[in-house]
Amino acid sequence: MTDLVTPTAADREDAAAVRESPVAHMKWWGWGVPGVAFHHEDKPGFAPFVKKAVGIDLHAVEPLVQPDFADLAVPASQAPEALREALALAVGAGGVRDDDLDRVVHTYGKSIRDLIRVRAGDLPRVPDLVVYPSDEDAVQRVVEAVVAADAVLIPFGGGSNIAGSLEPDPAERRPIVSVDLGRLDRVLSIDEQSSTARIQAGALGPSIEAQLNPRGWTIGHFPDSFTHSSLGGWIATRSSGMQSDKYGDIADIARGMRVARPGGLLDVRAVPSASTGPSVREMVLGSEGRLGVITEATVQVHRLPAKRVIHAYFFPNWRAASKAMRQIAEGDLHPAITRVSDSRESGFSLATSKESKGFSGLAQKGLFAFLRKRGWNLDDLCLSFIGYEGEPAHVAAQRKAVERIVKRNGGIGVGTGPGVLYDQKKFDTPYLRDFLLDRGTAGDVSETSVPWSGLDAMHDGVIAAAERAYASLGRKGWIMSHLSHSYHSGACLYFTFAYVMGDDPQGEYDVVKRAIQDAFIELGGVPSHHHGIGVEHAAWLSDVVSDQGVAMLRGLFAATDPGDNLNPAKIVR
Amino acid sequence: MTDLVTPTAADREDAAAVRESPVAHMKWWGWGVPGVAFHHEDKPGFAPFVKKAVGIDLHAVEPLVQPDFADLAVPASQAPEALREALALAVGAGGVRDDDLDRVVHTYGKSIRDLIRVRAGDLPRVPDLVVYPSDEDAVQRVVEAVVAADAVLIPFGGGSNIAGSLEPDPAERRPIVSVDLGRLDRVLSIDEQSSTARIQAGALGPSIEAQLNPRGWTIGHFPDSFTHSSLGGWIATRSSGMQSDKYGDIADIARGMRVARPGGLLDVRAVPSASTGPSVREMVLGSEGRLGVITEATVQVHRLPAKRVIHAYFFPNWRAASKAMRQIAEGDLHPAITRVSDSRESGFSLATSKESKGFSGLAQKGLFAFLRKRGWNLDDLCLSFIGYEGEPAHVAAQRKAVERIVKRNGGIGVGTGPGVLYDQKKFDTPYLRDFLLDRGTAGDVSETSVPWSGLDAMHDGVIAAAERAYASLGRKGWIMSHLSHSYHSGACLYFTFAYVMGDDPQGEYDVVKRAIQDAFIELGGVPSHHHGIGVEHAAWLSDVVSDQGVAMLRGLFAATDPGDNLNPAKIVR
Repeated sequence: MTDLVTPTAADREDAAAVRESPVAHMKWWGWGVPGVAFHHEDKPGFAPFVKKAVGIDLHAVEPLVQPDFADLAVPASQAPEALREALALAVGAGGVRDDDLDRVVHTYGKSIRDLIRVRAGDLPRVPDLVVYPSDEDAVQRVVEAVVAADAVLIPFGGGSNIAGSLEPDPAERRPIVSVDLGRLDRVLSIDEQSSTARIQAGALGPSIEAQLNPRGWTIGHFPDSFTHSSLGGWIATRSSGMQSDKYGDIADIARGMRVARPGGLLDVRAVPSASTGPSVREMVLGSEGRLGVITEATVQVHRLPAKRVIHAYFFPNWRAASKAMRQIAEGDLHPAITRVSDSRESGFSLATSKESKGFSGLAQKGLFAFLRKRGWNLDDLCLSFIGYEGEPAHVAAQRKAVERIVKRNGGIGVGTGPGVLYDQKKFDTPYLRDFLLDRGTAGDVSETSVPWSGLDAMHDGVIAAAERAYASLGRKGWIMSHLSHSYHSGACLYFTFAYVMGDDPQGEYDVVKRAIQDAFIELGGVPSHHHGIGVEHAAWLSDVVSDQGVAMLRGLFAATDPGDNLNPAKIVR
Repeated sequence: MTDLVTPTAADREDAAAVRESPVAHMKWWGWGVPGVAFHHEDKPGFAPFVKKAVGIDLHAVEPLVQPDFADLAVPASQAPEALREALALAVGAGGVRDDDLDRVVHTYGKSIRDLIRVRAGDLPRVPDLVVYPSDEDAVQRVVEAVVAADAVLIPFGGGSNIAGSLEPDPAERRPIVSVDLGRLDRVLSIDEQSSTARIQAGALGPSIEAQLNPRGWTIGHFPDSFTHSSLGGWIATRSSGMQSDKYGDIADIARGMRVARPGGLLDVRAVPSASTGPSVREMVLGSEGRLGVITEATVQVHRLPAKRVIHAYFFPNWRAASKAMRQIAEGDLHPAITRVSDSRESGFSLATSKESKGFSGLAQKGLFAFLRKRGWNLDDLCLSFIGYEGEPAHVAAQRKAVERIVKRNGGIGVGTGPGVLYDQKKFDTPYLRDFLLDRGTAGDVSETSVPWSGLDAMHDGVIAAAERAYASLGRKGWIMSHLSHSYHSGACLYFTFAYVMGDDPQGEYDVVKRAIQDAFIELGGVPSHHHGIGVEHAAWLSDVVSDQGVAMLRGLFAATDPGDNLNPAKIVR
């Protein structure tokens, strides 16, 4: 976990809201737990890095004053009394809320665009009601009530979405109901023989692990959003965790699912595999609320591994590193994590390490001198983490075989210290993003997947596209990347980018984001590997499933939701 | 390959047809290549086994005379001239055929119900035209022509389907066009870095391997139907191969696909993974022609393994064997095949071995005496095959770890001899089925998947259900099973059953088949693990995807095929 700082006024508002709402929420104006934030006092390399990357001096810039919720002009709730009563019947009176803070919390996810808008009071349309059903039957009653009233329903899990999947369509004139699944947070049962667990859809990552671990199990799904994302959200957006090489993506993990739909419950039986026509299971995966509200899933779980270790490696350059990852993926090996940062991200990681940990200090100096002597250009150095899990003999054998490939590609092992640090800090990046936003710098992420043969061209092409976009804005910007989630035929490339904001934050963001997404498509990738489509990525959907695929999706939604009541205008219009 | 016998009259008819048709077909009245059939002269244990199992004496029973095609009353083609001309424009005049033999070949797949019907001349509705497009553009033109004429289109790959996915709806009054993909049989390209290949949908298994192997690659997909099934058919029915533990099911293998649809080509980009809404890829998988005609797929391929070996093991009983398979699947191990036959199927395998090979002979006698001394009841003995593939060190390590689990569960290794035999004979079962049918005995298969916790109950329950069905018919019957396709959370159970037919072959088959399928559902399984739904399994679809799931599928088909021209009445009505 990242460091605790003194709560701000905004934090205190949030804390008050948490006490009133049936479910704890993230900050309305940023990521994560009120009172927790990133700071860099103990990371002396950070400020110089930021100066070099985007040109701002963290020691000189004053952080923006946190927005005051009282300053927001929140549109009044337009919920008709009849709908309010029907929902109160469905979930109980305490489960229906219409106060401004709760409604604003449910208006957006946590993308940089979301934060820019909510902080600016850009709230063209806010849910009219937020409901908190406490069980599946209540969810079903909510769905029926909303459809009967010809209102709009938007399911809400942890609220971490960054694809615009949660926001009401600004043009929507019907009442809008946000259905918060936060009270459905239990692991219902574990099938110890089948290695599966029935889990309610609203359970957040930490809650799932807290219920599974004491009984000896793990779901093995650890997306960057883990602390504030839910099982239902993972399924609805086709999430991927950082140990997906071992545990699979959520599409592999979630075997059965229950979805409250108009007319009744969709119940897909949990089986290891089936040949039963087009996969209904794979329709629910990625459906972002357009097919109904996911209430529960039966997921694969695994025994907590006897041994778990993350080793760090240095590669002399990106080409050598990506080739090693490919060779690991194409053969007989099964590490739990294969991740490599490009030289830009590696430099960033070294800069954001604390003085006393990771690569800093004397050991790093000695190692770097050694590498220089061997002819490495340290500006090209790439840092890789490879994780091994399982029985000790399996871990040892995997590591030995992986390290043969690492060595063959010019890489060297640098121990487990950095991996421990990575493991501790892996969920902190969004706090860092907010820290930069407080200082006028927009930071965001975009990811794609691409066949191995196009990976290096994708890496270079996306960086070039972002730099062209920065140049067109006349702005200093930064982009860096890592490879994660290796597959037999390719991998996910994950890009993090930042630039100093000007007078038109959303327009500028459009320029940069569009350049990156266009490059994804042009270079053989997809608009998203694990964040979903929402509205943010919808423009690029037809590029990867063709117009016919878009028409099929539109047909599916139209046929199964003829009133267009279920999170309309997401994925396809 | 199984043994060549003297061609019959029917074989000669088939051979003549092959010369005229642009594509070689299986026997119109049975499985496989004309002139090839099963015989048991060199398998002395076979006849006694059949006598015990279903009560007929193979030495006494006269094989039925092969049906004469001239005896069939084939309904005349009802294709209007305009459609015929439009199709001739689409594929060229030589690519449109309406002769009776070609039309009958395209009427059914190769299920026992299909063979019973075609041999009896039970042909209520036969395709009016068969077309043989030679490329994707031609397929697209055919789709447009058929829809423009409000005719019906049924795609046809290898013709091996056993779920009724190919048969015209008897009530269909519109013209019916069978689109044979047999001429689209090329591997178009191999991406050696990404380990993928673009392959045309009509390519049969042996043709795919013949094009890949010389370049060092394999698709790794070997269903029982391999010799006579096509890539497009595998995708359209969600096929699984016997090495799926390593290579995955076709749903894992097929990454990109192209489908000729009314209005244009559906083109799903081949990427390792994507978060782009409900999966269009997974809608095409299992679509059985209802979404269009699959023309091409980009599939994962693998380097031919340096080492490949199948070891055989004996277990003292089913419970011990299935537990060992579960323990192999739940941990860190990755064998290529995990297969175990129950005691019934093990007895069958031993009986059908040739005298000089496999388990027969002195070695077997000695081994059996040894096991009896150790307290085994040989009637309970279960034969298992576990395959290992990859680098020699990987194979050795996997085998060592697997054999620890085998031993812990009371099993013993019996070498590689039986595995070699299994490997040679693995595609021969359908010939054996036809041999029995020629002798008045119906044999068929049905398979399901089930979580590990329900596996033993499924095994016992299905056998009991079949036996109750046989008893209700007053007939002697047989059923046996093997576990194949292990997954983290469960496995596929594959049942083979046989009984002597009476006066009402289809009615009797309904009784037996229904009993087995009902048991699948009741005991937590699915109506099919890898054969599809078609019409044969449609009655059980709602049991596993619920009424809502069926409604979603119906909605998808109705929205994307408003004229109901694409293989109507399959999967859902």
